[in-house]
Amino acid sequence: MTLIDPKAIRNGDRLALSRALTAIENNTSESKRIQAALFPYTGNAHLVGVTGSPGSGKSTLVNQLAKTMRQSDHGEKPPKIAILAVDPTSPFSGGALLGDRIRMQDLAGDKGIFIRSMASHGALGGLAHNTAAFASLLDGAGFDVIIIETVGAGQAEVDIARLAHTVIVIEAPGMGDDIQAIKAGILEIADIMVVNKADRPEAENTARALKVMLEMGRGGESMPVTGKHLMRSIADKDETPKQADKKPGWETPIRLVTAIEGSGIDTLVNDIRQHRDYLESSDLWQSKEAYRLEKDLEALIKDKLLSQWQESLDEEKYQKVLMEIIQRKRSPIEALDLLL
Amino acid sequence: MTLIDPKAIRNGDRLALSRALTAIENNTSESKRIQAALFPYTGNAHLVGVTGSPGSGKSTLVNQLAKTMRQSDHGEKPPKIAILAVDPTSPFSGGALLGDRIRMQDLAGDKGIFIRSMASHGALGGLAHNTAAFASLLDGAGFDVIIIETVGAGQAEVDIARLAHTVIVIEAPGMGDDIQAIKAGILEIADIMVVNKADRPEAENTARALKVMLEMGRGGESMPVTGKHLMRSIADKDETPKQADKKPGWETPIRLVTAIEGSGIDTLVNDIRQHRDYLESSDLWQSKEAYRLEKDLEALIKDKLLSQWQESLDEEKYQKVLMEIIQRKRSPIEALDLLL
Repeated sequence: MTLIDPKAIRNGDRLALSRALTAIENNTSESKRIQAALFPYTGNAHLVGVTGSPGSGKSTLVNQLAKTMRQSDHGEKPPKIAILAVDPTSPFSGGALLGDRIRMQDLAGDKGIFIRSMASHGALGGLAHNTAAFASLLDGAGFDVIIIETVGAGQAEVDIARLAHTVIVIEAPGMGDDIQAIKAGILEIADIMVVNKADRPEAENTARALKVMLEMGRGGESMPVTGKHLMRSIADKDETPKQADKKPGWETPIRLVTAIEGSGIDTLVNDIRQHRDYLESSDLWQSKEAYRLEKDLEALIKDKLLSQWQESLDEEKYQKVLMEIIQRKRSPIEALDLLL
Repeated sequence: MTLIDPKAIRNGDRLALSRALTAIENNTSESKRIQAALFPYTGNAHLVGVTGSPGSGKSTLVNQLAKTMRQSDHGEKPPKIAILAVDPTSPFSGGALLGDRIRMQDLAGDKGIFIRSMASHGALGGLAHNTAAFASLLDGAGFDVIIIETVGAGQAEVDIARLAHTVIVIEAPGMGDDIQAIKAGILEIADIMVVNKADRPEAENTARALKVMLEMGRGGESMPVTGKHLMRSIADKDETPKQADKKPGWETPIRLVTAIEGSGIDTLVNDIRQHRDYLESSDLWQSKEAYRLEKDLEALIKDKLLSQWQESLDEEKYQKVLMEIIQRKRSPIEALDLLL
């Protein structure tokens, strides 16, 4: 197995890129080397999160977006696009691989599009961490737009979407009540709302309902603040990037789209560009970058602290304390003092 | 504000219980005291996870299960039941509270049922951690059955379900292709499968499809192993509790149910009891408990390590390094060595 050459990745070698991504998934020491080598080239890509309930038609929309973006630059060099499909299924399903194959058929032959699916590997938080690392590597590899597609029904998925510069939330018309509750949680992270399957009779109603929910939310309760002390110094204000979005200057559009026919996609591509312009013309692009980098650093620190502790751990003592917990002789909270 | 009395919680004081749960959510020092005080009484409750896609009818099913469990003990004292509805929505929506109110109407007047919704508060992993702490407190408070209801479409939610002794996965008939992929990820954690809305024509087909998927999965790829070194010593085998479930001895039943009419619920209640009997008659009950307690301990250790590090941190240095990362002068990975 030859070492992966970061220069090859910069020069568009897809095999090297794929191997590097796999190295990140496997958390090898080589992955650290490549990430560090490509890091200076990062910071240019536009990260676009696309999230929505199962059945809302995310994959179709993402494919159409990618196709349209590749075509719509009149005379200009079309952007290089990477698609990261974050799949909450396990290796058991083969779902991620199957998804890849279906997509490949649709976007085959376009060398300006790179597609990778990520299946989660059990560890809570690991998915978000890997997604951030993948996005950073693709950024460093020279992709102009990185579309991160997640199922927007879980906390982990929402957190992943939050890493993006621009978040598109997609809904299908007339889904169940259960969806309503989820929608609310996702709405607040939306920069652009899409109602897909606009040919269905309930589409207009859904769009109206979303509009009402968006208006209710505006100026509403604040988001939980993470990475407090960073944001304080970087942006000199005690708010997350997402809250900042809700400032006057960006009105979340609600678009009716029929992804499968490609109708409404042009408008959406335009919205995405406008949102990038908006971010860049304010200080938001930079503060989002800073937020993302701090989250990344935080995750690395946590991992490292835990592994340092594990290395210095007296395994016998740990097992003894754990057994006492299991026998209810000691609570986990009490055990902490003994172990740390 | 008077202190919360753990004895009052043991004696069934609901206000004290509610306050203690809120204290856990707010991560106060009082919550630690109460958790430690009630810990010796834990280990008796049967944790039942109910998870399924949005729109599958989870809440209705959970309500029916609770009602039926309360009625069906012929002459025996009916079990005390707690319902934890884990809601991936944010405080923004008020969704959790609304859900509570709707449920309250249905189950009102039964003092043997306690209901609490949990909204996630932004921190990745925080939801799973709080759910475990809630379940432990309710266990210590004397509830016999704790039903944990999650939307089964995200990694965090799957992890939460995995904490339960018995996992019920619920599906509605004929949902989209997108669901199929998710189903596969969730199937492997199912101890009991339910196809709800059995009156719909596609119900039988869905049940058949699930059966095929279950059979494909049996003996299939292994689950990611977490908490390795614990399980090695506790259960003396290198597998997670869930893998152990797939051993001969438990065949995951697939039940057709119409929750809204209450049909099929008796069978399901019976399945839940049989699964408990199965766990207790093998060593699985104990190994699941051990797994859960270790996850709990791990989370506490991670938190503590991070907060210890933060206390000893040179804030100025941290900010300087962070700024170097943002300016791409240093990669996050390189920064680690400087900060730790």
